[in-house]
Amino acid sequence: MTLSVQQTAQWLTERDGYLILTHKRPDGDTVGCAVALCLALRKLGKTAHVLPNEDASSLFAPYWGDALAPAGFTPETVVSVDIASEGLFPQSAETYKGRVDLAIDHHGSNTGFARNLCLEADKAACGEILYHIITHWFPVEADMALPLYVALATDTGCFLYSNTSPNTHRVAAALMETGIDAAWVNKRHFRTKSYTRLRLEGHLVETMDLHDGGAIALAALSLADQERLGATREDLEDIAAYVGQLEGVETAVTIQELTPGECKLSVRTGGLDASAVCALLGGGGHPAAAGCTVMGSVADAKAAVLAAIRQVQNHG
Amino acid sequence: MTLSVQQTAQWLTERDGYLILTHKRPDGDTVGCAVALCLALRKLGKTAHVLPNEDASSLFAPYWGDALAPAGFTPETVVSVDIASEGLFPQSAETYKGRVDLAIDHHGSNTGFARNLCLEADKAACGEILYHIITHWFPVEADMALPLYVALATDTGCFLYSNTSPNTHRVAAALMETGIDAAWVNKRHFRTKSYTRLRLEGHLVETMDLHDGGAIALAALSLADQERLGATREDLEDIAAYVGQLEGVETAVTIQELTPGECKLSVRTGGLDASAVCALLGGGGHPAAAGCTVMGSVADAKAAVLAAIRQVQNHG
Repeated sequence: MTLSVQQTAQWLTERDGYLILTHKRPDGDTVGCAVALCLALRKLGKTAHVLPNEDASSLFAPYWGDALAPAGFTPETVVSVDIASEGLFPQSAETYKGRVDLAIDHHGSNTGFARNLCLEADKAACGEILYHIITHWFPVEADMALPLYVALATDTGCFLYSNTSPNTHRVAAALMETGIDAAWVNKRHFRTKSYTRLRLEGHLVETMDLHDGGAIALAALSLADQERLGATREDLEDIAAYVGQLEGVETAVTIQELTPGECKLSVRTGGLDASAVCALLGGGGHPAAAGCTVMGSVADAKAAVLAAIRQVQNHG
Repeated sequence: MTLSVQQTAQWLTERDGYLILTHKRPDGDTVGCAVALCLALRKLGKTAHVLPNEDASSLFAPYWGDALAPAGFTPETVVSVDIASEGLFPQSAETYKGRVDLAIDHHGSNTGFARNLCLEADKAACGEILYHIITHWFPVEADMALPLYVALATDTGCFLYSNTSPNTHRVAAALMETGIDAAWVNKRHFRTKSYTRLRLEGHLVETMDLHDGGAIALAALSLADQERLGATREDLEDIAAYVGQLEGVETAVTIQELTPGECKLSVRTGGLDASAVCALLGGGGHPAAAGCTVMGSVADAKAAVLAAIRQVQNHG
């Protein structure tokens, strides 16, 4: 069943024994929504916990508080936040496939895996939906406002991406009114980079190939580069966005060698259809951001993706 | 005389023949305020122009529209926006020193150089004040909303810095409601870097000296480095902010060799008093961001600032 925000607020008051699920490789939106909903349900007098997520980055450690479920907790009601499909469940949530009572989500692609769905696809962050649900019960206070602010800020690149709407800013204003230290959150997530990350970025710019007068940039991190610089998964997070900021670049390709002879490609474009480029190489995605895997060396991957770009250019 | 926002709105309706001044090395806030005020005064039926600013970066070219004053325009009323003192007038405004009728500003340090002053020091951007003035007359429409959004976004690092307030977000929401392409502005100002800028950043990280287990970072751009990489003034803009984002760094020093044997130092700190460090070297500034000039080579400057940091550490 599809529930409006108001119906969802009502539905949640009528149940108890909540377990809240976050998605695989959790981001600030799923974490922030889960913690805020947990705190709000407890304030309503309910039992509520967030399922521990084995994938959670230490970056989000300050936000969990005491929300995580103790071992052996048996829920009566299972709610997912910011999860578009059961394929995005973390390992820890495997047992809840087919057993989710309510999904709260902002992905238009939500598969409808839950018994009930509260979906607002026009919201930049699922945190905006949570804010509107919680304010049906009481004004949001600082303890809930902080994780909700994390949700909004991280899903919009600090109000930078095109998904940011007037509603996003209005909710951010209301959250900040509670006295939270938004600048501390912003500094943590948007103005802090590891030494290795900065060196990876420096390596990308020094070694990238530019074509068509700088409109096409091909940047690569071989396994040897990653080992030499000591790159971890955190250091490589969202590295594909780096090359796209280069002035004049319309098509940015970032190649990461995963294992000897296997390269992961991320293609970001300003005009060309990135999903068409990646489809030629067995991948897919969105018109402005897509990905694929190429079997071969970094040099093989560069040649393959450049050929695919040429083919799409000539038939676009 | 000190005028409130409401009094300023009234004052502006009672005069005509406006010339609007922007500050030296204009930023998005002074440019955005000037253009928005000019358009609003014209909508009130007034004659209004913005004084051309010889210092203006091409980055702001799309925002001027037809606001710039024709040669020979003789104003009846001179208004400055976002200018804290006459020392910050551009060359083109020299002739208006002592002749400003109204200053609209958000700098607490405003010297009171104008006959009338509308000052709100709690505002992150002067653009917020302009928004409140203009909405005394009529709802802001897209033509004024775009430059005002530029003002807000650029003075807050896209709603990232600690000056961002709930009011900043609420005004941003209202501006976006007019249908402006905020994402285009954000991309231009926050997600676009020149190839040279990226190479300068890569050079800084590859050559920086780390002390105290990474808590102190000393980064430098010699004249030879700047020439080799072809750095322009635009490429070097705000380069001091780069090193400060390195995880674990508490004291970040960026040294730029200006002429042979003359180095400009920028010191950004998380705990140590940056102005005390720079005062020891004949400079000054704020507790978290200060600057000074050291006569000598880059190596001399590094040694001098490290000694100054040690002295402040030992007496702090």
